[in-house]
Amino acid sequence: MTQTTLLSPPTIPTIPTWKPTVYAKRQAQLAAIPEAWRLPHPPATPTPPKQDQDQEQDQDTLTTIRTSGILTAQELAWTETADTTVLLGALASGEITSVQLTTAFCKRAALAQQLTKCLTEIFFDRALARARWLDAEFARTGGRPRGPLHGLPVSIKDRFDLEGVDTTVGWVGLINKPAQKSSSIARLLESMGAVLYVKTNVPQSLMMSDSYNHVFGQSINAFNSRLISGGSSGGEGALIGTRGSVLGIGTDIGGSIRIPANLQGLYSVCPSRGRVPWDCSFMHQHYMVPPVAGPMARSLASIEHFMVALLASEPWTLDPGCIPIPWRAELAQPPAHRKLRVAIIHDDGVVKPQPPIARAMREVERKLVDAGHEVIPWPATALHKEGTALWTKAILADGGQHCRYLCDIVGEPLIEGMVVGTAEDELSVEEREKLEETKYTYQETYLSHWTTSGIDALLMPVTPWVGYRPKSWVVSAQWLGYTALWNLLDYAAVTVPVTCADAGVDHPESNSDSEINRAWREHVPRNESDRFNYLQYDIDLVKDMPVTVQVVGGKFGEEKAVAVAKVLDELLR
Amino acid sequence: MTQTTLLSPPTIPTIPTWKPTVYAKRQAQLAAIPEAWRLPHPPATPTPPKQDQDQEQDQDTLTTIRTSGILTAQELAWTETADTTVLLGALASGEITSVQLTTAFCKRAALAQQLTKCLTEIFFDRALARARWLDAEFARTGGRPRGPLHGLPVSIKDRFDLEGVDTTVGWVGLINKPAQKSSSIARLLESMGAVLYVKTNVPQSLMMSDSYNHVFGQSINAFNSRLISGGSSGGEGALIGTRGSVLGIGTDIGGSIRIPANLQGLYSVCPSRGRVPWDCSFMHQHYMVPPVAGPMARSLASIEHFMVALLASEPWTLDPGCIPIPWRAELAQPPAHRKLRVAIIHDDGVVKPQPPIARAMREVERKLVDAGHEVIPWPATALHKEGTALWTKAILADGGQHCRYLCDIVGEPLIEGMVVGTAEDELSVEEREKLEETKYTYQETYLSHWTTSGIDALLMPVTPWVGYRPKSWVVSAQWLGYTALWNLLDYAAVTVPVTCADAGVDHPESNSDSEINRAWREHVPRNESDRFNYLQYDIDLVKDMPVTVQVVGGKFGEEKAVAVAKVLDELLR
Repeated sequence: MTQTTLLSPPTIPTIPTWKPTVYAKRQAQLAAIPEAWRLPHPPATPTPPKQDQDQEQDQDTLTTIRTSGILTAQELAWTETADTTVLLGALASGEITSVQLTTAFCKRAALAQQLTKCLTEIFFDRALARARWLDAEFARTGGRPRGPLHGLPVSIKDRFDLEGVDTTVGWVGLINKPAQKSSSIARLLESMGAVLYVKTNVPQSLMMSDSYNHVFGQSINAFNSRLISGGSSGGEGALIGTRGSVLGIGTDIGGSIRIPANLQGLYSVCPSRGRVPWDCSFMHQHYMVPPVAGPMARSLASIEHFMVALLASEPWTLDPGCIPIPWRAELAQPPAHRKLRVAIIHDDGVVKPQPPIARAMREVERKLVDAGHEVIPWPATALHKEGTALWTKAILADGGQHCRYLCDIVGEPLIEGMVVGTAEDELSVEEREKLEETKYTYQETYLSHWTTSGIDALLMPVTPWVGYRPKSWVVSAQWLGYTALWNLLDYAAVTVPVTCADAGVDHPESNSDSEINRAWREHVPRNESDRFNYLQYDIDLVKDMPVTVQVVGGKFGEEKAVAVAKVLDELLR
Repeated sequence: MTQTTLLSPPTIPTIPTWKPTVYAKRQAQLAAIPEAWRLPHPPATPTPPKQDQDQEQDQDTLTTIRTSGILTAQELAWTETADTTVLLGALASGEITSVQLTTAFCKRAALAQQLTKCLTEIFFDRALARARWLDAEFARTGGRPRGPLHGLPVSIKDRFDLEGVDTTVGWVGLINKPAQKSSSIARLLESMGAVLYVKTNVPQSLMMSDSYNHVFGQSINAFNSRLISGGSSGGEGALIGTRGSVLGIGTDIGGSIRIPANLQGLYSVCPSRGRVPWDCSFMHQHYMVPPVAGPMARSLASIEHFMVALLASEPWTLDPGCIPIPWRAELAQPPAHRKLRVAIIHDDGVVKPQPPIARAMREVERKLVDAGHEVIPWPATALHKEGTALWTKAILADGGQHCRYLCDIVGEPLIEGMVVGTAEDELSVEEREKLEETKYTYQETYLSHWTTSGIDALLMPVTPWVGYRPKSWVVSAQWLGYTALWNLLDYAAVTVPVTCADAGVDHPESNSDSEINRAWREHVPRNESDRFNYLQYDIDLVKDMPVTVQVVGGKFGEEKAVAVAKVLDELLR
């Protein structure tokens, strides 16, 4: 005992040495927002609302932005436009300039940041300089757009390098290490004429569906400050949800594009590996599941236009990880002479979807059937459980070494509860090979089912939950089976907004859809994850929150998923 | 000393315990060849000809086969046909039956085996049963072919599983372990109507350009029994060279399709990963360079037809490793309204190509230029050296563990001198990640050069040598830079026969092409590999041996390479 005391004298609590670095970073971040674009009472370091304040919802972010007086009526109208092709048309015709549009989105992103903490790097000056240059080129060439995204502000997740700007990915140890070279997606976006102006927040390690880290703090939902924006592309989700961006690029290895898209009611594409450049910081971490990048937006047309434009720019001539499959426009159209055949999973048998999600899936099915499409059930349970277990094993395979390394740069603590491996999870080279073999066999089995079924797509929920309070995801015994399975299979998926949680209809005591609500009331939790999901459902908390459906198109099935999304969009709008 | 003696008593030399297994396997292999198809004096266990016999060439294999009296004139004519589409046309019209054609190829393969030791598994009975079934189906359906390869015998390298048949891959420890399930390429070939009848020999470990192993012995060249058939698809090369097969499937990770194709004067495709199913025994070994499968044949039309037929069968619906890029016929045609722009590498600066190869490259260049095409030089040295070093590091990354494991099953010794890692080469997971990062950067740099150059393809030798004697490759300080670089980059390449070594023209003392021969005479070896290559050149040994050119089409550039190969074929024939 004496010896222990000698070796470890009682320490006086001090501020960790890395905290001043964070303060300086946050100051620099705030300084990047002009005074004129600051809200009267900006929550300097916003904390999640206390429990006792929960009953009264804050004024929603959209109303705050619209009434702030910081954006002109014209700027509000431009930023409220969901469809990039409308804005691009206005830019290409010279009706608006890139400086005007970039200014509008910079202002709105600045407000979004103050309300949701969705940003990391802010470089409005650089963006406006670029917009001026684009406008000058446009004038000089007699009105010729410099590519399919000419003049359009586009946001990117803080996972992609942009020359001269930090890529902290939420790690304190990576502050003040600006990238030497832009990632291929950033270079392609610029070559297509886009204006980059912000990077968006992520969770530490990227392995949470709740975007917070020690550098930039907690991102919250675009529509409800008591709820999370999702993750790991959570900042992107919140920014687009608040209309601080019209098009953003996220990344996904287990749901990281689709979950924030779901929580903010966005369209998104989680593609198969090789269609969208994925050349990221730490990209060479020995992932056993292919991480991918993809677009997020408020309209299906925006998503499709991005994919068309990106693939027309032939990313495979720049990024050796890209595959030369052009956008197959004929596959992206609903079949002209036949009805769809789609599979549906209402409940994967592991975690039961909460009532608003169950209702959304029923609505989707009913509308498809009413329109004459064929909807077949898809047995999920055993096969999906197996696949999700493989995904988890693969994701944890590095035993958390990367995270420990990144923490150790400055002695930053690891956030407990993320999907990060421990020494016990670490796989040797031989164990990795064995897992690769098992994975291949699994993929072969699933592909056989998929091919035999002859479906156009498979529909299922993105998450079995509608919303989480900040920092509760890490204690939720997370079940990522609804999204992660498709990463294991490398199948493309698209999210499509369906409905919003309804305080009346989706109340478990409500009789409006008696079957769903009765089943929920009588549900006996199946496991720990299901119990958490069951107990945390609170319709008063999540009312009015969006619910999306996931349209899985199969491997390299981006176009097929878009085609089915078009049919859904038509039926649901 | 006493203690050592006690622990290791002097042992009496005995036959290794695995030898009887090999004898039994070879007996079974011989038994699979009907008596009537055996040559009068089959070399039961052929040994490489002794040095003192070298001056007199044996009767060549083609003459032996043609004069053996075992094949009918009609069978000889069928098997001498180079173009699969001619044979497929005759099968589809009912002019010949699959049983007839299969019988012919079984006979010829049996002779090829006796002359070159090119086979491993022989299953003529199974093949003929299948052919009978195909003929019956053809008759039953009123003459409808069962797929684009209806009735055609196709050989496959002993790397692919075929249900019920061993896949020894040259390892004694894998004898008598028949595959439980066919590989996807075998299943696809059968679904396309092909008849599988033999599997072909490989080197132990697959990491040699000389195909010999303790199970099946030494494969030799189709045209010269004093020379090797190459590797690792060396049995396939010798079989097709002797016309014992009209179409075969090999695999390549550093030159294993292209080198045997070169040594037997064949057309072949070494594709980018994902175009041809590659689902092999030990496929999940943690390769850091993508291994691929591809066709080998005696005509360009055969190669192209196979690629068209394979991709039309949508292998991606069966094999999760395949990518849905159909055969892009428009890219496989030489451009109609412009001349080609191709790059050429005569000498990679590391190992100087021997005179017949140097001459072949000059001829190719001259004919292209004379036809009005643009031929640009391509600086190779530094960049290619760097890439080959990365390839070697990646290939050795497992530290030879797989080979040790396979040896240890039965105590089989490892053949010294193969490209197999030792404990010193083994890379940890972190080192592998670092190498992946370096590789990506390298690929990005090379892609940038490639894209900027605007070339249709790049031409270079396949090997800097024309032929090796058996078992000399392992002591040759092998330089695989001419082929392996394209595997590291995952670029598609096609081989095209150009010429044959000429005892007069290519004699270093000859003046017929003074520049090449003078340069060879005056050459001062640059390094150990170059010295070996220089000293082992013996025109009397390699005279009349074929020389091919490698047409590199870039990543997923199979069609482009085929288009340029068509132009070359036209100019050279």
